Amino acid sequence: MTAAPLPKTGAARYAGSRVQRVEDARLLTGAGTFVDDVTRPGMLHACFVRSPHPRARIVSIDNSAALALPGVHAVFTAGDLNGDVVEAWYTGTGNQVPDTPRPPLAVSEARFAGDIVALVVADSRYLAEDAAELVDVDYEPLPAVPDYARARTAEALVHDGYAGNLAGELAGAPAETIADAYDGAAHVVSETIWEQAQGAVPMETRGLVAEWSRGSGELTVWAATQAPHEVRMFAARLLGIPEHSVRVITRDVGGGFGQKVVPLREDICVLLAARRLAGAVKWIEDRRENLQSAGTARHEHGEARLAFDDAGTILAASLDHVQDVGAYPTPWPVMTGAATGMIFPGPYRVARGTFSHASVFSSTPGRIAYRGPWAFETLAREVTLDIAARRMAIDPAELRRRNLLRRDEMPYSSPTGMPYDHMDPLETLEQALAVLDYDAFRNEQAAARAQGRYLGVGISCYAEPTAPAFGVYATEGATIRIEPSGKVNVYLAGGSTGNSLETTAVQLAADALGADIADVHTIQGDTAVTPFGAGTGGSRSGSMIAGAVGVTAAELRDKLTKMAAHKLEASEADIELAQSRAAVKGDPEAGVSFAELADIAYFQPYALPPGTSPGLEASARYAATGMGLWACATHVCTCEVDVTTGKVTLLRYVVGEDCGHMINPAVVEGQIAGGVVQGIGGALLEELAYDADGNPVATTFMDYLLPTAAEVPVIEYAHVETAPGPGPGGYKGVGEGGAIGAPPAVVNAVADALAPFGVTITRLPLTPAAIASLIDASLIDQGREPETGGSQ
Amino acid sequence: MTAAPLPKTGAARYAGSRVQRVEDARLLTGAGTFVDDVTRPGMLHACFVRSPHPRARIVSIDNSAALALPGVHAVFTAGDLNGDVVEAWYTGTGNQVPDTPRPPLAVSEARFAGDIVALVVADSRYLAEDAAELVDVDYEPLPAVPDYARARTAEALVHDGYAGNLAGELAGAPAETIADAYDGAAHVVSETIWEQAQGAVPMETRGLVAEWSRGSGELTVWAATQAPHEVRMFAARLLGIPEHSVRVITRDVGGGFGQKVVPLREDICVLLAARRLAGAVKWIEDRRENLQSAGTARHEHGEARLAFDDAGTILAASLDHVQDVGAYPTPWPVMTGAATGMIFPGPYRVARGTFSHASVFSSTPGRIAYRGPWAFETLAREVTLDIAARRMAIDPAELRRRNLLRRDEMPYSSPTGMPYDHMDPLETLEQALAVLDYDAFRNEQAAARAQGRYLGVGISCYAEPTAPAFGVYATEGATIRIEPSGKVNVYLAGGSTGNSLETTAVQLAADALGADIADVHTIQGDTAVTPFGAGTGGSRSGSMIAGAVGVTAAELRDKLTKMAAHKLEASEADIELAQSRAAVKGDPEAGVSFAELADIAYFQPYALPPGTSPGLEASARYAATGMGLWACATHVCTCEVDVTTGKVTLLRYVVGEDCGHMINPAVVEGQIAGGVVQGIGGALLEELAYDADGNPVATTFMDYLLPTAAEVPVIEYAHVETAPGPGPGGYKGVGEGGAIGAPPAVVNAVADALAPFGVTITRLPLTPAAIASLIDASLIDQGREPETGGSQ
Repeated sequence: MTAAPLPKTGAARYAGSRVQRVEDARLLTGAGTFVDDVTRPGMLHACFVRSPHPRARIVSIDNSAALALPGVHAVFTAGDLNGDVVEAWYTGTGNQVPDTPRPPLAVSEARFAGDIVALVVADSRYLAEDAAELVDVDYEPLPAVPDYARARTAEALVHDGYAGNLAGELAGAPAETIADAYDGAAHVVSETIWEQAQGAVPMETRGLVAEWSRGSGELTVWAATQAPHEVRMFAARLLGIPEHSVRVITRDVGGGFGQKVVPLREDICVLLAARRLAGAVKWIEDRRENLQSAGTARHEHGEARLAFDDAGTILAASLDHVQDVGAYPTPWPVMTGAATGMIFPGPYRVARGTFSHASVFSSTPGRIAYRGPWAFETLAREVTLDIAARRMAIDPAELRRRNLLRRDEMPYSSPTGMPYDHMDPLETLEQALAVLDYDAFRNEQAAARAQGRYLGVGISCYAEPTAPAFGVYATEGATIRIEPSGKVNVYLAGGSTGNSLETTAVQLAADALGADIADVHTIQGDTAVTPFGAGTGGSRSGSMIAGAVGVTAAELRDKLTKMAAHKLEASEADIELAQSRAAVKGDPEAGVSFAELADIAYFQPYALPPGTSPGLEASARYAATGMGLWACATHVCTCEVDVTTGKVTLLRYVVGEDCGHMINPAVVEGQIAGGVVQGIGGALLEELAYDADGNPVATTFMDYLLPTAAEVPVIEYAHVETAPGPGPGGYKGVGEGGAIGAPPAVVNAVADALAPFGVTITRLPLTPAAIASLIDASLIDQGREPETGGSQ
Repeated sequence: MTAAPLPKTGAARYAGSRVQRVEDARLLTGAGTFVDDVTRPGMLHACFVRSPHPRARIVSIDNSAALALPGVHAVFTAGDLNGDVVEAWYTGTGNQVPDTPRPPLAVSEARFAGDIVALVVADSRYLAEDAAELVDVDYEPLPAVPDYARARTAEALVHDGYAGNLAGELAGAPAETIADAYDGAAHVVSETIWEQAQGAVPMETRGLVAEWSRGSGELTVWAATQAPHEVRMFAARLLGIPEHSVRVITRDVGGGFGQKVVPLREDICVLLAARRLAGAVKWIEDRRENLQSAGTARHEHGEARLAFDDAGTILAASLDHVQDVGAYPTPWPVMTGAATGMIFPGPYRVARGTFSHASVFSSTPGRIAYRGPWAFETLAREVTLDIAARRMAIDPAELRRRNLLRRDEMPYSSPTGMPYDHMDPLETLEQALAVLDYDAFRNEQAAARAQGRYLGVGISCYAEPTAPAFGVYATEGATIRIEPSGKVNVYLAGGSTGNSLETTAVQLAADALGADIADVHTIQGDTAVTPFGAGTGGSRSGSMIAGAVGVTAAELRDKLTKMAAHKLEASEADIELAQSRAAVKGDPEAGVSFAELADIAYFQPYALPPGTSPGLEASARYAATGMGLWACATHVCTCEVDVTTGKVTLLRYVVGEDCGHMINPAVVEGQIAGGVVQGIGGALLEELAYDADGNPVATTFMDYLLPTAAEVPVIEYAHVETAPGPGPGGYKGVGEGGAIGAPPAVVNAVADALAPFGVTITRLPLTPAAIASLIDASLIDQGREPETGGSQ
């Protein structure tokens, strides 16, 4: 499906076309402003003292040598700083204080290797690093809890008061209540699927500059964040000051992927230190810190149980899920963990299902959000589905075709109560298979196998609620000012971390107002300047911006129309707005420019139509409703596996996604591609590994392997635009899907390639060593050579 | 008249009470942010090379020695910088390019002693000053035009192309057309009144930091200005970039008084230099520069002609007015000059009148706005009126009483077409005289004179249009955001230069919303943050803020009321908003706080009343209409003159002012007092004097004398609140009046004290030497000793 070309003239729509990114002018010329580009007069630099032990009692901390170093301004420990916290309030409404321990600096015990024990502030980062080495911490090492999967029975406790290291659990209906669905089934397939620990690994690490003004009692924070207003709310609560005394400024952010949704413990320490020192303090995380301490994601496993009838119809789908939340998870880990179970039945026609979930502490940093926070449900379901397909000897595409929901079945309620609507999962499968030419690949695969080459194809399907309407995510506001010159400024909360929110805003506002896109400018990421907004998360920004800009621009559009009708002595119904001009239909020459109308609105109020207020500015807010806008997709990829070395080469990768109308196909494809690449990394390469004692072993990019262009094929797309959807403009979220769909597609492709060996894959990542050992184990088990036929 | 005490509870109104200034917390603790407090990374410092000659040809400029100094980044001359100007656009609408020459740096000729010839930019101001001394300018001195009063016949021309050094002229009906009014009059009094050159002399001199970002093509300006948005409009035009690429930030400004209304030539040079150097450049004017180059005001004279009948009724009032506009006046000097003539008939019942005006160039810096830009009309009229009173032997209070307009005569059209309305000049006279106890003073005066002491009383009355509705002044906008916490942020353009606009905004918004004033915060002075507004000028801010906040808050008040009615299950008509709560009348306990309503508006849109949009934010704009809101006042002061030394001691000073309702009596009185002190300075002390060759002789505070607490008596007030006026809330402007009314009141008091000597005063300032010589000359003329009786 090809997008419309960029409109040139007339009443053109920018939405739907590949408008060039407005961010690129600065970003591609190296002129972006990331937080490390911020310099403040007299700015100090922070460095953390981190525990080398996975678990240790902090017997004493001697700061004297560090403080004696000239240029060192402070060495803070928990005893100094932690008491300054007034209320650490994370997000949303009501009493949402953290539900798990979250001290700024470690109190009495270090709980993972990298835990922050002290904070040094000095004239330069170099000096701060030197001073940090002089801080003498007397540790008494204690037994750690390195493996969450064994934490429930470990003798050691990560936190006192949490018996069995259980942070929390939540479950749907008891398994017994749906036991009958399994008892009577023709086939029951049950597998425990394990996903390894991964990091969000943004190109720009975390960082902030916090500046406290003693005179005014005001705090300014330059933050690498996905949600400037949430940082403001958080900092105001943390320090016990009014929101308007905090200003958070964010210009360019080099990726967030969930790691920059809420302030983490280091951020808290720097905010507190800035007030203590009454000046500006900068902390920029280095890569080692990012990999060691910025949080982990995806470290979880679950037993997936699927029941089928003879025809392969899914009768029931259940998941018992356990996730590692580390030592200091971001608050409410149980909520996303439970969502994993609730969404487990996925975009399929499934009558019965339930789930259980447990969140377990370990001696690792702490679970954080990561693009597609409940992505594990897709991995567990889709991998198990392929295992089932092989066991039932049904082609995996055909098995999905028989069970996927269709557009005409909407609305549809999943057995766990998910209110699916306005999506077409089956159509995404059909279009993705068509782009790939699935049957042709099966032929190619058979031919290759005859030559001793192992090709495979993997499919995964998922559904996800995007732009969910709860708490801070429920609404989004915009202010639009048409300036006295007739140029348009669109004020939005922003929180772009590379996801083109400026381009999105400019496109949508130009369309909504009938302005030339070159006349539209957007200001985002400054809490003193923009309306409140919840930032980037939950694949919400595109849809929510469309809503906010839409309701706000509508007011101005009405006013421009009224003014133009008055000025041109025409009927309002005959006025068309396009290219920053208002003209009478059929007589574009007789129009009036937005600049002329703005001059009247600001400086000639006597020339306004009777009853019309002066100015050309509007502020309005859009409210989303319900659980979210359901997006869905099918990922299909093909690979070749070198069965000697275990190396996987991806050949083709097709995404068929139903994300509603596209605001900008280039941006949509960029979002999908970015997510897919992260998913491929998770499937094949990345692992935040720890040794048996709990020491991190992947703290550099030599050990934590990221996908590069060499590992990733060209991504192909088959967009399915279901319409009309309930969201503004028919847009759905697309930010997270790529990362959700990719891992099982890759796993299934590799498993398909290795089907002749009878291999069952249940653990990631699929490193060459892992694959080679799977093949070896399987051959040894079976005492045979691999087959050379098809995968079924 | 005593203002109401500060309200404590219930549906109280803050407006009208002496609310403590919200600015004071930072200003009184030394924590204000003035432009010189701004420091930017890598910031450079500017210093100007200024002509030592009043007029000279610039033969050549040798930069080489200056550029060779390490740390010097640039030395710009007119040839370098002036060509960068795209369009120097000053204010208002339409094609208002300057109507008089206005190059950034002097081109080919220096036109006053202090003219800017080159701009040096270096690592520090010290270095820049040193380098400026190394710039070798070869001047060829030329004959100057030091005296504007003789400029029309001078051989030398300040600017080629302006014959007779005439910048422009404008006149009302020809004098012949009203000659009959004079021909038949019982008394015609004609005097030429001269006012000396004065400076605005803000406590904080001019200054700015301009920072150009090469990557984004954006300019940020921290400016000491009365009108941040006008600086933005101006800078955008100057550099040929869109308005949204310019951000002007102003926090605290230590006085403007007209000097900081529009960018002056130094500002232009710094803006251009910042772009050239692609970084931050700071320029802070020193005091010598401010007195020498920041512009002059009040340098003018006029022949006032008043005709009376036998009873002292004014029959006609005319003024022929000439003003010095120096070499580089701010644009359109003729407009304010002509206004002087048009307002000359003042708050009196005058049937006939006309005026003429000429603006004349001279070899002095250039005329700028100064608090009460057409104040000279009041000086000329009121001094001449007292001269007439003496000649007609009518008490000056009685003469005014017979001629002043009354409230019940409104509307009233002056003979020059001024549409007076909603004011009560006579009442201001009566109240001011009552506060003084005029008759008692006359007795005291007589008793003193019997003892050989010379006491006098002086009266002056004026009317002025405040908050005039033209061009950029026509409208003012506000954005109000009730934050998720329920706190209120009020966004206004601002431009406060000490005139308490933050306090004003907070008071008015708290009343308009029913909020606790402690919950209301205002953000002003940042063009990226606030709606467009024209800043401080024309005594407009109080009234325009009342309008802007009023129309904007009304929208939010409606919404809060609707939401509260829904939540409390009550009728909207029964809801009262007060102290940041909405409650049912008579049942305040059952209310709901703004914080609770905000939580619903932002995070629980499903709980909103049906049809109500989410959020609690509004942007709206108020349009003023007409010529302005007419304010008027009577100033009465008493003095004692030491006839030996010529020293004047002011005894009492009373202002009876009709400025409408008072938003904050403490602020109103502060505004009046500040203006009065400036007026007293102008009458007695200040003079930007030049020698006969055009060299400035008052370039330090040793020579330019400012009034101090020792010279100024306690100011007493008699507020006349005429209501209902046409402005929002019944407020009128009060910023300029003090400076308008004071000089003639002081002159008339001194003349009254010296009446026994038969002295006629027509020139300012009334220095001891001037008074002594007036007395001597009068005694010599008349060959007699002074009388000892009353002044009549």
